[in-house]
Amino acid sequence: MATDFTEETAAAAVIASLADTPDPRLRELLSGLVKHLHAFARETEPTIAEWEYAIDFLTRTGQKCDDERQEFILLSDVLGISMLVETINNRKHGKATESTVLGPFHVVESPRRELGDSIDFVGTGQPCVVRGRVLTAAGAPGLPGLPGLPVPGAELDVWQANDQGFYDVQQPGMQPRANGRGLFTAGADGAFWFRTIVPSYYPIPTDGPVGDLLNATKRHPYRPAHIHFIVSAPSHRTLTTHIFVAGSQYIESDAVFAVKKSLIADFTLTDDADLAARYGLNGPFFLIDFDFILLS
Amino acid sequence: MATDFTEETAAAAVIASLADTPDPRLRELLSGLVKHLHAFARETEPTIAEWEYAIDFLTRTGQKCDDERQEFILLSDVLGISMLVETINNRKHGKATESTVLGPFHVVESPRRELGDSIDFVGTGQPCVVRGRVLTAAGAPGLPGLPGLPVPGAELDVWQANDQGFYDVQQPGMQPRANGRGLFTAGADGAFWFRTIVPSYYPIPTDGPVGDLLNATKRHPYRPAHIHFIVSAPSHRTLTTHIFVAGSQYIESDAVFAVKKSLIADFTLTDDADLAARYGLNGPFFLIDFDFILLS
Repeated sequence: MATDFTEETAAAAVIASLADTPDPRLRELLSGLVKHLHAFARETEPTIAEWEYAIDFLTRTGQKCDDERQEFILLSDVLGISMLVETINNRKHGKATESTVLGPFHVVESPRRELGDSIDFVGTGQPCVVRGRVLTAAGAPGLPGLPGLPVPGAELDVWQANDQGFYDVQQPGMQPRANGRGLFTAGADGAFWFRTIVPSYYPIPTDGPVGDLLNATKRHPYRPAHIHFIVSAPSHRTLTTHIFVAGSQYIESDAVFAVKKSLIADFTLTDDADLAARYGLNGPFFLIDFDFILLS
Repeated sequence: MATDFTEETAAAAVIASLADTPDPRLRELLSGLVKHLHAFARETEPTIAEWEYAIDFLTRTGQKCDDERQEFILLSDVLGISMLVETINNRKHGKATESTVLGPFHVVESPRRELGDSIDFVGTGQPCVVRGRVLTAAGAPGLPGLPGLPVPGAELDVWQANDQGFYDVQQPGMQPRANGRGLFTAGADGAFWFRTIVPSYYPIPTDGPVGDLLNATKRHPYRPAHIHFIVSAPSHRTLTTHIFVAGSQYIESDAVFAVKKSLIADFTLTDDADLAARYGLNGPFFLIDFDFILLS
């Protein structure tokens, strides 16, 4: 390093100090970070007071984190970084279903349920049936262009907010444990179906620094209504995604930028008494058809 | 925002979400941050595991902070951001003395001392005398190119580590309170002088995430020996800077990149008994001549 610090040579001097990093990937990541953070500072020229505010903001963000709250993930979410990293790591391949963010409300063990079971244990909200197939992206041999082959034995881990926009873990006294959650195994034909209620849009937590950021930028904290899925099968790449409710409020301004067009599904109000009876329901219900197409 | 998230449109979508930010400067800063952070992610393509590591690193950095420890400033320091912001905010103007980082060891009230006082209350270490003048950068009217006019009544807030590389606040039982600290007022001719000992190089704290970062990149944690100054006077811009000890170990690889060539001073070993006596010393001592030139 040269014995002189200037705006022009600063980034190069810091990057040079990383030259002996044993792990080449760590060196690449840190060098890239220094290059871009220095470019940000040179371009925006933060005042000392602005820099001090940023230091305090980051400190408060770290100190807001505990076993049940990850404010830095939330910060990464509202700046679109989480979705960008997710998208980079799961680029669209042909017909394969697109991924989106995992989010903070997944729990390790969803209770195992049978096809057709309901994951709603409260009974308020609009009933709905989610049905579809888990298919391979590869396509049937000799049949290019047709849908892929069924993936037998595929597992679908499902979780969602209730009709008030809360996950079970957010309302421990008010929702039964594992309400809105289930682990299903698709049939040999790749088919699955289960009953639930239409989820609501909901706000991300706003009582921390990220809430301050949203407030200062006049951004709302809401996510459009969606159902989470992790779809996995032997010899296939695990898919983490959502089905978004078409027409949901905030579908065009998700606070965490997680919407992809291909993941928006019509929730079709159905008034077919025979179909309702077949699904163990009475009265009108919403029907969602959605196939998950996995990479092998 | 478009209802589709892609790598190409992500940064623009996040920046568009900031459009209603009432404070234009906040909008500028956040838009710049998003632009450069997204560019970093697109260029380096972090894996999900790398992103999770970064989230955890930032969380631990925030949680390491307390009333006496600011790990995010330390992170900013070792990535050269602190010095870059300092340099942007204090660009070199003609003959004016250059600034450098404040560092974490300044205390609000240094004890007031008389010119010539010693700030060393331990008695180990190599004695030295620091002397110089506080001058205006403007130059004497009609005498361009000559040194500036004396700044009468300038104040110099001084603090330094001892000969073991520790500040008083780091060794509460071992160093007297305010050892190595003093607030001096220069004379009407701008002149100042005080006695101290030659400071040692020292390591920044390494028991936190920033220490892990230095270790993983095989960087040492040391700062070359220096004395801190804040020089202020009515109608002049306050100067925060160091005098670095020429030839100090680590002078070419300061862990926080704070060295500027113009701030390196010769600490000249002097064996002049008359001069020693005049400064109230006996035996050889180090003599430092350094003028501070303030912007008005």
